[in-house]
Order: sequence, then C-alpha cells, then structure tokens
Amino acid sequence: MSDQNLKSTLFQDLVDLLQNRDFPGLKLFLEEVPPADSAEAFELLPEEEQALLFRLLPTGMAAEVFEYMPVENQERLVHAMGGVELAAILNAMSADDRTALFEELPTPVSARLVAMLSPEKRATALDLLNYPEDSVGRLMTSEYVKVRDPWSARRVLDHIRAHGRNSETLNIVYAVDDHDRLLGDIRIREFLLCPLDETVGELRNEVIVCLHAMDHKESAVEAFRKYDRTALPVVDKFGGLVGIVTVDDVLDVAEERATEDMQKIGGMEHLDEPYMEISLGMLVKKRATWLVVLFLGEMLTATAMAGYQDEIAKAVVLSIFVPLIISSGGNSGSQAATLIIRAMALGEVGLGDWWKVMRREILSGLALGIILAIFGFLRISVWTAIWHPYGEHWILIAATVSFSLIGVVLWGTLSGSMLPFLLKRVGLDPATSSAPFVATLVDVTGLLIYFAVAGAILKGAML
Amino acid sequence: MSDQNLKSTLFQDLVDLLQNRDFPGLKLFLEEVPPADSAEAFELLPEEEQALLFRLLPTGMAAEVFEYMPVENQERLVHAMGGVELAAILNAMSADDRTALFEELPTPVSARLVAMLSPEKRATALDLLNYPEDSVGRLMTSEYVKVRDPWSARRVLDHIRAHGRNSETLNIVYAVDDHDRLLGDIRIREFLLCPLDETVGELRNEVIVCLHAMDHKESAVEAFRKYDRTALPVVDKFGGLVGIVTVDDVLDVAEERATEDMQKIGGMEHLDEPYMEISLGMLVKKRATWLVVLFLGEMLTATAMAGYQDEIAKAVVLSIFVPLIISSGGNSGSQAATLIIRAMALGEVGLGDWWKVMRREILSGLALGIILAIFGFLRISVWTAIWHPYGEHWILIAATVSFSLIGVVLWGTLSGSMLPFLLKRVGLDPATSSAPFVATLVDVTGLLIYFAVAGAILKGAML
Repeated sequence: MSDQNLKSTLFQDLVDLLQNRDFPGLKLFLEEVPPADSAEAFELLPEEEQALLFRLLPTGMAAEVFEYMPVENQERLVHAMGGVELAAILNAMSADDRTALFEELPTPVSARLVAMLSPEKRATALDLLNYPEDSVGRLMTSEYVKVRDPWSARRVLDHIRAHGRNSETLNIVYAVDDHDRLLGDIRIREFLLCPLDETVGELRNEVIVCLHAMDHKESAVEAFRKYDRTALPVVDKFGGLVGIVTVDDVLDVAEERATEDMQKIGGMEHLDEPYMEISLGMLVKKRATWLVVLFLGEMLTATAMAGYQDEIAKAVVLSIFVPLIISSGGNSGSQAATLIIRAMALGEVGLGDWWKVMRREILSGLALGIILAIFGFLRISVWTAIWHPYGEHWILIAATVSFSLIGVVLWGTLSGSMLPFLLKRVGLDPATSSAPFVATLVDVTGLLIYFAVAGAILKGAML
Repeated sequence: MSDQNLKSTLFQDLVDLLQNRDFPGLKLFLEEVPPADSAEAFELLPEEEQALLFRLLPTGMAAEVFEYMPVENQERLVHAMGGVELAAILNAMSADDRTALFEELPTPVSARLVAMLSPEKRATALDLLNYPEDSVGRLMTSEYVKVRDPWSARRVLDHIRAHGRNSETLNIVYAVDDHDRLLGDIRIREFLLCPLDETVGELRNEVIVCLHAMDHKESAVEAFRKYDRTALPVVDKFGGLVGIVTVDDVLDVAEERATEDMQKIGGMEHLDEPYMEISLGMLVKKRATWLVVLFLGEMLTATAMAGYQDEIAKAVVLSIFVPLIISSGGNSGSQAATLIIRAMALGEVGLGDWWKVMRREILSGLALGIILAIFGFLRISVWTAIWHPYGEHWILIAATVSFSLIGVVLWGTLSGSMLPFLLKRVGLDPATSSAPFVATLVDVTGLLIYFAVAGAILKGAML
C-alpha cells in the first residue's frame, strides 16, 4: 500500500469515527497509529474538527500528535484552541518541540503561551528562548538523567525507574559534580551489563564529547556526523550541563541546511517554508529579488555588446556564437561553484585550502576548455565542409571560437571556485555565489574575452 | 581551541609517542581520545606507520578507530596490513561498517576478506552483501536484542546483561514470534520503569513502524525523518526480522543524497568522493561529460542565431540584448528547477502535484516576467533620454525587449518546474534537470521567442 493510500485510509477511518461521535473508538484508533501518521491524517481535517479532536483527546496523546504537526499547522491550531486544553497540551510537549513552536509565533502570542506553562516549565522555556536563534541551545531538551560519581549501578537504575519518565533519551545518562559540571557520560547498557554494585565513577567515560549551547546549530550536525552518537550533552561556558541534543533533531537541521544551500545555489532566497505551503506572493518575492539583481548585472552585457556594435556590423557572423561562448563559461562556473560550496558545507574544504583548490581548478579549467574548444572547432569545420556558411575566413572564425572557449571556460571555472572563498572570507554565506550569480559574472567577462580574441585574430581579415 | 589546532596537537602527541616507541603511553592516549578523533590523527601519519599502529593496538580498539576512517583510507590499509591483524580487526568491526568497506573494495579483495571472518560473521556479511546496493539491507546491522512475548522484564534485563554486549543499540529491543516474525518493539526504558514481573507481551507496542530490506535506502531517511526514532527494525518480505538500522547511518545517507543532488543541480555527475580526495583526471571526467552535452545542446543557439543573420545585419541593435534575454530565461528556469527538485527529494511534492505546481508556476512566471519587463523598459528609456543610443525606433526596441522578457521568463519558469516531473515520470532522477541543463534548453527557445517578437513589432520599421 502506498503512503498516499495509507493516508487516505487513515483519514476515512478518522472521519467515520468523528461523524459517529465514537470517542472511545477514536481513542483506541489513535493509540494504535503512530503519532506521526495520526498527525498527517489530522492535517487533512478542517481546522475546527482538529481543534475539537484535541479537546477530546487525553492530554498526553494530544501533545504527542501535536508535536508531529508542521509548525505552521500548530500555529493555526493555537489560535483555534481554548486556553485550558492548550495549556495542558503545551505542558505535556517535550521542551525542544515547544521551543520550536514558540520561535515561530509572533512574540505577543508566544508570551501568552509561555504564561500558560507550569512555573517549572516556564523557567525552562524562557531559558531555551534566551539562546540565540540558530544556536545549539534552541535544539536542547532539558529532559535527561543526571547521576553522580558515588552512585552504584543499582541506585542509578532505581533513580531512572523513579525519575526517568520524562527523559527524552534513556540511552545515555550524564555524570555531574556538585556544581552540575559535566564529568562524563555512561551508556545505559553499561549499567545493564555490569555488577549492580559498581559505581558511576568507575563506569563513566573520561572522554567527553560535548556541544556548546551558544555555538551555531550546524556545529551540532558536524559533531553528530563525526562521532556517530544518538545524543550529545550541551554545556555552558563554565562547563555546566544545561541540556542534551538528540540526533533526530539534528537530521532536521542537516536537511534544512541542505535545502537552504540548494535554493541559494539555484539563485533565490531561502524559502523558509515548504514549497506547497508558501503563499504565491512570498514565492514570487523570494525569487524576484535575486532575479532582478541578476538582471541588473546582466545589463552590463548589453553595455558590452553595444561597445562592439561596429565589429558586429562588420562581421555579423560573430554574433552567432555569442550565446554559445557565454553559456559555456556560465556552465563551467556553475559546476565549480556548486562543488566548492558543498565541499565547504561538509567541512571537506576550509578557507586555508584556497591555494590548493585554485591550482586544481586552473588545471581542470584548462582541460575542460580545451575539450570544448576541440568540439567547437569540429562543429565549425564540419558545417563549413557541408554548407560553407561562414565565408572564406571560416578557419579564423573557428580559431576565434576555440581560443575564446579556452579563455572563457578557464575564467568561469576559476571565478566559480574562488568566489565562495571570497564570500566566506568576508563573512558571507558561500552559497550566495549561486550558479546564476557566477553565470552572470562570467557572461560579461566572457563577452570581453570573446571580442578581444576576435579583435586579435580577425584584425585585417574581417575587422 | 579550533578543530584544526586540536587535530595537530593530537597528531604531535601521536608522533612523539611513536618515535619514543612508548606503546603503553600510546594505548593510554588512544583510550582517552574519542575514536573519531584518533582516526583523524591517524590519517595524518604515513601509511606504514598507520599499519604498524594497528598491529600494535588491542583488537577492539583498533577496530573502533578503523571504523571511523574514510573508506578510501581503510582500503589502502587493507593492502598494507598483514592477514592475522586484518582478520582480527574485521571480526571486531560492526556489521554495517564492515559491509560499507566490502562494498567499496574490488570483488576479489572483498572475497578474500570475507574468507577471513569467523563462520558466523561470514554468514552475516554474505547476507548483507546479498542485498542490492543502495538498499536498506546494506545499512543494517544484525547486532540487536530479540525477546519473546512470555518473558518478564527481569528475564529481559538478565538476557541483555548476558547477551547484549554486541548489540549496536540497546535503546530498543524487538519482540519476535517462534518464526522470528517481528511482533513489536519496546523501549528499554519500559523495562526500567515497570515492575520486574511484567512481561514483554504486556509491554510491547502493537504498532510497528518498520523498514523493508529491499527498499531503496532513501526510504529509510524518510521514515526516520517522519517518526523521529533512533533505530528502526528491518523485515524481509515475509515479515521476518532481519536487522536494524540506526539513525547515525541515516544521517550519512541523507547528506550523501543532498550532495549528489547539489552536484547534479550544478550540472555535473555526482563525484562519489570528497572534492579534495578525488583525482584530477576523475574530477575533469565527471565535469566534462555534462559540459560537452550542454555544449552540444547550446550549439543549437548558433544554428538559431544563424537563421536570424539577416535580421541582425539590418538591426545590429537586436544582438545587443541577446545575452540579457536568454540569461533571464535561464536564471528563472534554474530557480524553478531547483525548487521543485528539492521539494521532491523532501517528499513535499509528488508526481500527482504537477497540475498544482504548473498553475503556481504560470502565475509566478508571469509575475516575475512582468517585473523584469518593467526594469528592461526603464533601462532602455533612461539610456535613450541620456545618450540616445538606440535610434528613432527606441520605443519599439523597448517593447520588443519587454515582451520577450515576459515570454522568456514564463517559458523558463514553466520548463524548469515541469522538467523534473517529466524526468521522474519516465523513471529518471529529477535532479538531472540541473540549472545549466534548463538554462541551455531555455537559451535556444529564448532566442526563438525574442526574434519572433522582434519580427512582429519591428516589421516595417526596422526589419
């Protein structure tokens, strides 16, 4: 059964249960379906019915389903739901998902919601919201198990049995000292595999891999990619344990980052919302800005072309190859820029590598230019042999096109690969040097190269 | 301390310990550094020293460090290490990392390595290698804990204590029937939080989210993204439990997929290797193929331009705006293609949505085209007011450029957004409709649109 079919079956079942006002059946139904699937089925219902459902569900269950909804949908529901139900659901949500919701809401709304939390949860929420947007702090959950060095495995297991109900991951527990400074971590398996009287101090790892709450959240992606953990502890600048980050949230950060980079490479602003959900006005706005900037840049080609009007009038045949020449430069530039941007995002290439990259790209650019030059020369020769469209000086035209291609492709490759370094060096996002941006840059210089080569080769013969 | 500094400090310590032949110190050192960091420091050493180190280390430790090395490096070490040490390390590696190594090696080499495994591990390795490349099966590990319905929590905990040492994740255990068919999963926390005499049957979830061993590994990414789990069970077509997949491996799959898509969007073949490690020859080859294909396509622009040679000769001013017009079409096409490719990869847009997307893109394309047309018209008007470079018919030229822009941008947006659907429909990867590919397609049709509009508007006046 395809995913689409499964969704509509779930939806039909939900509608039936709702129409029959079969609330016990509804409860049973939701108990059996994973909350992620229920959330998808919920989204297909009209908003008022969703709000009604949330009111009728046991709080824990409602919070679970609510957590799996996209933030935009959560936002709408917040407005549709009454205060009491909302407070119950918010209190039952896990801390990191709650922070993600608060982040998206307008400040007055999120302030009102924070006020609905229990005093303890309000403190946590305010703590988390205090971390800068895009920091590791915003990904944290405060629901984890802390233990101390002298405790035995038996005491740890009892402690978990008594206090572990809310901890997001029980895979790992964290040892802290009297000032809550992180000493080390121990996988639960250690307590399960060891004699019951061994202590935390004997079991724990000295080596601590941890994240810093104020760091950018992409540092979390790098740490998880490198260390293959399911959760990592987060410390403040004094080494105090302030929370943990679990790998499922990091998967989302990594995908969001990749989407952002791709959209920038495609030559637009990052959308921030899924394609099907963003409003048409916003969609146009996010694309128009860059398109206009590129258009204004590309106007320089008209200026450049106007400067060569006399040459074109004398040798109209020159204009024929203009699109071919400039697009080859643009394409090789797009390739180089995309390669370097992605390698930088994955940490394979750093600022210090610019010289190594430049050497490689000069060689690649030369090789690629020569390959295209050969194809260009062949094209003009074959056409000449069959139709003879380029006149007596065809060999000079072929030479002009071929040498221009080498120059333009080399230049495209070089500027495409170096621009990300330049942007990163001055503190901008390398992904801004998108394929269209590089193409525009190379179009203008490509024209200058082409007409300079033409001037040198055709002087006296055609010009 | 930056990552780079940390690495060189580790490296210096390693070199010192090696030069002093301080093997106890070396062992202590490696015990304290996370294996991922040790692996990075190892990679900075010459190969023979690496091989020597692996020979001297305790097997478990050697296997851990080995697992964190990039596959290319593992490959080289396999050739440098002796049979006995290699066999020990291979046997101590976890099943999924071992499969990843075997996959990369030439068949005779991996066959030789498989023969070095213990009979039990050899069976597992052959099982895993039997799954198609890029299938969920290749991501699996067979190291997990299976339990049965009648078992009490106490018995489960004892079982884990006795047999759990090799299981990759102890966060979740899996309940199976007598034929090893998957019945449900239970988080370890349940056993820790419940009375010790409760049974698996009472505790376990009926709802099973599971992966299928033969499915494409990207289905695993989708499932993890949706269900927020740290591990998911994998079943064969009879519902039998054959392994589990953990989320850390899925993070790698997701990033690899994003890299592949980006490189394709940038207009080249997927590199398969990190930028700094791929050979220059391979780098050129991966880029040249597409560059030549695009070049051959772009040659059609020369054909199109040649067809309008008479018009250009009569009105040279027309040639001035050729790069501006075609690049605007290319840029809007890149935007649309990138948006749709990424939305498809994230599952936000499916094949069935083509009609909805088309409607949105027609409206977006019109809006974007009109915006650029206004800028184009202004540019020509202002230039005329100041320098008067376009002659008496400047208003007709401005109209030609503006109407062409609307047509070209609309066409670029439409073809950029529909091409990914078309490719997916015929079973190809939508990411093949890269920015340069769409740009090339739109360049040729852009010229046709431009000269058709010019013909209609300038007829009688300039043409």
